[in-house]
Parts: sequence; structure tokens; C-alpha cells
Amino acid sequence: MSGEGSGVTVLGLDPGTRHFGWGVVRRAGTRLTHVAHGVIHVADEGALGERLVAIERALVEVVEAHAPLEASIESLFFAKDAQAAAKLGHARGVALLVCSRAGLPSFEYPPARVKRTVTGAGRADKSQVAHMIRVMLGLAQAPPADAADALAIAVTHLQGRALPRPVSRGPRVSGTNR
Amino acid sequence: MSGEGSGVTVLGLDPGTRHFGWGVVRRAGTRLTHVAHGVIHVADEGALGERLVAIERALVEVVEAHAPLEASIESLFFAKDAQAAAKLGHARGVALLVCSRAGLPSFEYPPARVKRTVTGAGRADKSQVAHMIRVMLGLAQAPPADAADALAIAVTHLQGRALPRPVSRGPRVSGTNR
Repeated sequence: MSGEGSGVTVLGLDPGTRHFGWGVVRRAGTRLTHVAHGVIHVADEGALGERLVAIERALVEVVEAHAPLEASIESLFFAKDAQAAAKLGHARGVALLVCSRAGLPSFEYPPARVKRTVTGAGRADKSQVAHMIRVMLGLAQAPPADAADALAIAVTHLQGRALPRPVSRGPRVSGTNR
Repeated sequence: MSGEGSGVTVLGLDPGTRHFGWGVVRRAGTRLTHVAHGVIHVADEGALGERLVAIERALVEVVEAHAPLEASIESLFFAKDAQAAAKLGHARGVALLVCSRAGLPSFEYPPARVKRTVTGAGRADKSQVAHMIRVMLGLAQAPPADAADALAIAVTHLQGRALPRPVSRGPRVSGTNR
């Protein structure tokens, strides 16, 4: 685990059963540093269970490689489409499982909050998010959209992380740093 | 794994993030035998990630103890409530993950099909399902509702299992034994 003394490393997660974005960002004082990002692409033809196993393996590798202290994830998006929500829930459940097993508390933020944090507008589109993430983290080029969203979720958590201690337990995934 | 020669053992799953029902049923020829059942009760106050870890551990134990050949699970229930669907998806995702890791193909059946199989009526209530499961499997008493549902899902799969080979791969969780 990353010690607080030299900064805090946070894993941002943007779950999906086909394209699962992740991003690792470090904060030391007020300075944010990009550590790594990626998108887990899962073969479409596999059974859902096999896709979830692939996601689990990839996430375990990311956690082991970067040893984040905390995880940050989009809150459940209350889509009108219950089927889409349930599918997303499968991937999100595996993500929370992997984080919890590794001892990472997970914090959740609504999409509009994440967009507002990085672009100033709650209804920004994906390309704006990717652009601002590139600028904020000093990247040579904008990351793929799913990874940019994940980095944005990590940034949102790090920027709000001034509370005395993380909300690591609660009735929900919790995490309501404002 | 259970060999086909001496019968087929199936794990039925009724996912929930608070009460997760499971049941193991064996079929040899046309004879169904109850093997075991239970409900994983997860403490309500824990973070969702921790609850999912508890579910994962319990399911791994069940799979190791009973070595089923196949798993059977309710198809996504298209509730009007997307939030409920997403939550259910978390637990269901962990279940599919555990089964897939253990090499069990998962088959899914809509709730109405399961009810019709065990009670003759697609709109039977939970107590009817529990009663019929008790009768069909010759149990001294009716199992708890969540476990009865899980046993009913296993029975549904076993009764339709006359196809030449299981649908272990497909675009979805799949399993469309009719």
C-alpha cells in the first residue's frame, strides 16, 4: 500500500462488461500525477461468466502493480433501462469484490459530479472529459474515453479527499466526500 | 466434478446482496435427489464490496463441497427499478464469476419458467414453490424461500437437461434448454 507520507495513490474505475476503464492517479500535496491507465477489452463472444473472470484477472493485476490506497468508482447510474443497469452491475460487482479483497475502500461519485470536477460542467461529453484529463495530468495525448473517465473518477476522489478519514464502511459503497 | 455416469449434480442460485439462496440437486436417470441447500445471509451494515466478498467465499465453499457439474441461475429480472436491477447484478456477477472460475457452465431461466416447472403455474408465489420443492425432493420440511427458489432453479435445469450437450458458451450467460 502507498503510504500517506509520500502521497496517496487512487485507482479510478469505469466499469463495463465489454470495455472496462481504469486509471491510477497520485496526489502529493496539491499536485496530481498520472501513474497509469488502461481499458480492459473483453471478447464479446464469451459467456458473461468468462468475461467477468477476465475482468477480475486484469483488475487484480492492476491493483498488484500499482498498490493504490483507495478506489473510486462511478455510482450506479440510474438508467431507465433496468437490463443495462443489471449488466453494468455484474462488472461493477466484480470490481468492488476485487477492491474489497485487496483491502481498498471504494468511494463512489455520480457521473455529473465527476464531469463537473474535471470540466466545470455536469453535462460535459466524453471528449471534453478526455481533453481536460490530458491537460490536468500533463499527458502527451488524450487517453481512450473509458480510461479518461476512470482517471476523472480518481481525480474527483483525490480533489475531495480533505476529510479526516475515508468513509470505508457504510450501508452502501458509500463515500460522500463533498 | 461429478461424472455423468452416476448422475448429474447441479447448483441452483438465487442471487441477492442480502440473502443469497443456493441449492444442490442431483439427477440420476429420472430420479431427482436433494443434496444440500442454504441461504447466505450477509450483514447489512457492511460496505457492498465486503458483502460481495462474503458471498464469494460462501459460494466457493459450496462449489468445493458439492462439486456440481453445472450451475443454474435466474435470468435477469427486468424490474422497472433500474437501481434494484443493478444491485442484484452485483451479486449475480460474483456468482457467475465463481462458477466460471470453477469451470461450471451457467444456464439461466426466467422466473416464470422456474415457477411453472415446479408448480405448474408461472405466477405461483414463494410459499407454493417451497411447498412443491419439499414434495418433489422428499424433504421433511419446506426450505427457506430463497433456498427453495434456488432448488427450483436447479430442478428446472435438470428437468430440461435432455439436450445433447450443455450450452456452455454464447453471447449471454445463455442456456436455453426448453
